[in-house]
Amino acid sequence: MKFSPLFWPIQFKNGIIYILDETLLPHKLTYIKAKNYQEACRAIKEMKTRAVGQVILVMYIFLQLLEQGKKKDLVKVAQAINSTRPTLSFKFLTDMVLGWAKSGAPLDKCITGFLEGLKYSRIKQAEEASKLIKSGDCILTHCNISGLLPLIGEICQKQGKKISFFATETRPYMQGSRLTAWELKQAGFDVTIITDNMVAAVMSLGKVNKVIVGADHLAQNGDIANKIGTYGIAVLARHFNLPFYVLCPPASGLKSGKDIKIEIRPDIEMLEYQGLRLAPIGAKGYYPAFDVTPNKLITKHIHLNVGTVLNSRQKCPRRGQF
Amino acid sequence: MKFSPLFWPIQFKNGIIYILDETLLPHKLTYIKAKNYQEACRAIKEMKTRAVGQVILVMYIFLQLLEQGKKKDLVKVAQAINSTRPTLSFKFLTDMVLGWAKSGAPLDKCITGFLEGLKYSRIKQAEEASKLIKSGDCILTHCNISGLLPLIGEICQKQGKKISFFATETRPYMQGSRLTAWELKQAGFDVTIITDNMVAAVMSLGKVNKVIVGADHLAQNGDIANKIGTYGIAVLARHFNLPFYVLCPPASGLKSGKDIKIEIRPDIEMLEYQGLRLAPIGAKGYYPAFDVTPNKLITKHIHLNVGTVLNSRQKCPRRGQF
Repeated sequence: MKFSPLFWPIQFKNGIIYILDETLLPHKLTYIKAKNYQEACRAIKEMKTRAVGQVILVMYIFLQLLEQGKKKDLVKVAQAINSTRPTLSFKFLTDMVLGWAKSGAPLDKCITGFLEGLKYSRIKQAEEASKLIKSGDCILTHCNISGLLPLIGEICQKQGKKISFFATETRPYMQGSRLTAWELKQAGFDVTIITDNMVAAVMSLGKVNKVIVGADHLAQNGDIANKIGTYGIAVLARHFNLPFYVLCPPASGLKSGKDIKIEIRPDIEMLEYQGLRLAPIGAKGYYPAFDVTPNKLITKHIHLNVGTVLNSRQKCPRRGQF
Repeated sequence: MKFSPLFWPIQFKNGIIYILDETLLPHKLTYIKAKNYQEACRAIKEMKTRAVGQVILVMYIFLQLLEQGKKKDLVKVAQAINSTRPTLSFKFLTDMVLGWAKSGAPLDKCITGFLEGLKYSRIKQAEEASKLIKSGDCILTHCNISGLLPLIGEICQKQGKKISFFATETRPYMQGSRLTAWELKQAGFDVTIITDNMVAAVMSLGKVNKVIVGADHLAQNGDIANKIGTYGIAVLARHFNLPFYVLCPPASGLKSGKDIKIEIRPDIEMLEYQGLRLAPIGAKGYYPAFDVTPNKLITKHIHLNVGTVLNSRQKCPRRGQF
């Protein structure tokens, strides 16, 4: 199986953590080297990695610490990780690691076991998604699902299904164009970029027939939060009678989408792009980074093999479990 | 009444045509000087002006020609105008002028009469639109309606109605940000820019309660063609139960939206922005410049005072008619 660099964007080799710098994609494929937790935390602060990359990075930070014989610094490092991003919570991850340590479990095995479980569950998730796809399908996607889409494509190809993709560019940060179109093209798939406002046109013209997106948050009632623009695509999919599938993380404790706090980011991030001023000087913008898609618009949630990963959160998983 | 520079973007003074260079907005407010029809046609070719600006410019080209005592060149100049843009038809305008000339009517009076009628009808159209607006409304708009929106706002203000605006940035050419947000802010209105994929979010949050857009084409059955993205907004407006109003040009002879030919533009125009590469090298895009919104999604068409303008097309209008 080939993997997109975005599927597992962090590597840990010979004591050094290699972090894929997603801000330089698609023009440069560069890894930042982190020799210690301070350097790794800086990469999180500067948003060099995102989504699953952050989860993997947090776990490798602890693994590196153990290799350096600094188990005594666990709590200090957990605090440093938790203070990297004001709006993003890594606390469930750091608490899990501290819990394993407290219980006296072999910490390095717990961490590598968790990461293996995560990788295995993500592959299973891609396999589940591939069952929903027929030969000839053209999948519309939005933002980036960290390497799952090329994997779904590869599984489909092995099953003899011919598929192609449309990717929204995903303003303002362009993850659809910079990451998704890039990784799909790298993997040899037919992918066409559209601006975010072309979705109704391509649906009405029959150019796409299914939607697959990811989710940053899954509430108990099935509502999801995902990159801004997802909600609109879900409404359009319903209008044009197209299935709308969501690759989900494990459900959080929140009851419904109404309980998910949406991050409002500085408008400068949408009024400029890479230093180029897009809007009139002095104009104001409104930039909610995510929106909430209600459960009723979702044809099917494709769950992460929750049993495996959630169990691994409760207690140190044994290799045999995966 | 104050007018946005975009309401009447072409001026004719002392024998020279002044063409507002819309490609330089919002950072520079510059007029190109055209001393003859060749220079004016070049400005059309290079897309320095658009929409109503092109109609006004074509008429001023003929007026300039008459002032230069070159009435004998009418047919040649009409041909030059018609060959400026492959996909845009100015033929109904040039045919109208040639028709007036053939009938022996006083051509300069016909042209100025037509332009006065156009201006008057557009003001009437803004007045009609203002009747649909209540104090406290926040209007979502898309692309640019050539100065009509600030005019509607001004009329509302005179009626004591307080209104504000949200403008989609309108990728890929950014007319919403560059032109609409600019002209509304210039006129002193509260306007907030959003990226095109934030429409569902702002509608679901109740931040906007009405939609007003323009149209490039109105078919006999009420379907419209307008800047790409309009269709999606219409579907979302229906989903969130918001009225969707369209400021229309006179209806064409086409039966329905299905008969409107949609211009597919080079994908380089969306994969780059002002020389900055947005997409991976080698990636492909799909760029339909317009989409067709079906009549059933339109709450109300706000027509250009068709009687006046269409009559002025048939025969040279007299001043008293306006």
